[in-house]
Amino acid sequence: MNLFFSKNIDKDLNKIILDGQEHLHLIKVLRKSIDDNINVTDGFGFIYLCKITNIHKTYTDLTINEIINDNSHKPKLNLAVSILKKSNRFEFLLEKAVEIGVSEITPIISKHTEKKKLNFERLNKIMLSALKQSKSSILPKLNNTIEVKHYIDNTSSSYSNYVATCKNNQTKSINSILKPNLNVNILIGPEGDFSHDELIYAKNANFTPVSFSNKRLRSETAAIYFCTLFSYINKL
Amino acid sequence: MNLFFSKNIDKDLNKIILDGQEHLHLIKVLRKSIDDNINVTDGFGFIYLCKITNIHKTYTDLTINEIINDNSHKPKLNLAVSILKKSNRFEFLLEKAVEIGVSEITPIISKHTEKKKLNFERLNKIMLSALKQSKSSILPKLNNTIEVKHYIDNTSSSYSNYVATCKNNQTKSINSILKPNLNVNILIGPEGDFSHDELIYAKNANFTPVSFSNKRLRSETAAIYFCTLFSYINKL
Repeated sequence: MNLFFSKNIDKDLNKIILDGQEHLHLIKVLRKSIDDNINVTDGFGFIYLCKITNIHKTYTDLTINEIINDNSHKPKLNLAVSILKKSNRFEFLLEKAVEIGVSEITPIISKHTEKKKLNFERLNKIMLSALKQSKSSILPKLNNTIEVKHYIDNTSSSYSNYVATCKNNQTKSINSILKPNLNVNILIGPEGDFSHDELIYAKNANFTPVSFSNKRLRSETAAIYFCTLFSYINKL
Repeated sequence: MNLFFSKNIDKDLNKIILDGQEHLHLIKVLRKSIDDNINVTDGFGFIYLCKITNIHKTYTDLTINEIINDNSHKPKLNLAVSILKKSNRFEFLLEKAVEIGVSEITPIISKHTEKKKLNFERLNKIMLSALKQSKSSILPKLNNTIEVKHYIDNTSSSYSNYVATCKNNQTKSINSILKPNLNVNILIGPEGDFSHDELIYAKNANFTPVSFSNKRLRSETAAIYFCTLFSYINKL
C-alpha cells in the first residue's frame, strides 16, 4: 500500500487532511474513492491507518482508524556533511540517507568547502519522495547550513561523536568503535577533507577521528557507508 | 600519492608503460619528470612502486622497484544487478561499488527490467576513475549483460548465494545470515523486483532470499548497502 505524507493531523479529532500533490496523487493518479483505506505518515515515526471520508477539489478528508508508533526508543543518527561541489552528489547522498534512515542532516561549511549554497526547496522535495518510496515513517530534519566549528560547539555530550577523515593521524577504524544503541553525531568533510585545524578542534570537543575502510571514499560514499553501518548495527 | 593504471606491465623485465590519458595526466597535469616515483596498479590487486625512466611523446617508461599484493586471500563479492531505468542510478551504483570494493559486477535482465542496453565504454571509464580516486588496486570485472536465469545457472556452488527481494515470502534478514570470509553472489532486481517465477528459480538453485532492512530500498541503494556490509564484515 502507498504511504502518504501530511502535516495536517488532528489526533484529538481523529482527522487528517491531505492536500497539494498528495491529494492529487491520491485522487487523480490512484483514483481512490470514499471509504478506501490508506496509510499516512507525519514523518516523525507515526503511521496512521485511515479511511477516506470526503473528497474535495483541493483536499481530501481522512478519518484515523489506528496509529502505529514506528520510532520508539530507536537510537538517533545525526549526519553533518559538507556541501559538495556537484549538487547531484549531495542530492544522491540525501536521498540514500532518507532511504536507509537518519534522524537529522546538517549541511556544513568547512575550510575546504567550495560551494556554499543549497536549494533547500529542491532538497526537501527529494527527501519527501525518498520517504514515500522507502515507506519510511521518519522524515529526517534537514537543518540550515552551519559552519563546522559552530556545529561542533552545539553538539550534545550525551552523543557519541565521530569525525570522518582520510588523514591518517590516529584515526580509529569504524570496525573497532561502532556499538549498538548509542546516539551518534558523524561529521563528514568536503572533497579536500577537513583542515588540520578543524580536526584538532573536533578532537578537543571529544570527536573521535574515524576511517571507514582501507580505501579513500568520496564524501557522499562515506556518508552512505556510515548510515548503512548504523542501520545494520542497530537492526533498524 | 596518485595511483595510476596500466595494462602494459612486464614483471619479467620490471617494466611498465603508461600511455593514453594516464601518460598525459602524469606528464602534462602533474608535470612529473625522470626519476620521480609513482604508484601503478594493474586492477588485479597488485600495486607497483615505480620510477620514471623515460618520457616519450605518447607514453612513459617506468621501472618497477617493488610489488605489493593487496588481494591475497580476500573473500570475493560478485554483484549481479538489473539494468535500471535511469542510467545515472546504475552509474552511481557502479562508482560506489568500485569505491567500496567488489570483485565482479554483472548487469542482468529480469522480467521487470525495462531498459536493456548499457554504454559499456562509459561505464568502464567511470569504474577506472573510481578506482584511481579511491586508491584501490582492484578493478572489478564488468561482465556482459546476461539474463537472470542464465546467471543463476552459471553460479558456483562454493559461493554463498543470495537474492535480494522486497517480497516478504520467507526472506531472511541480512543481519542473521552475513558471515565473514565467505565468497558471495548477490542478485539485485530492477525497480519492480524479481518476478515470482524468478524468485522460485533462484531458491531452487540455492539462492537464499534476503531483505536488507525494514525499509524498501531502491535497487541501487540495496546494492550499495550490501557492498558496505560485505566490506565491513570482512574488514576490507
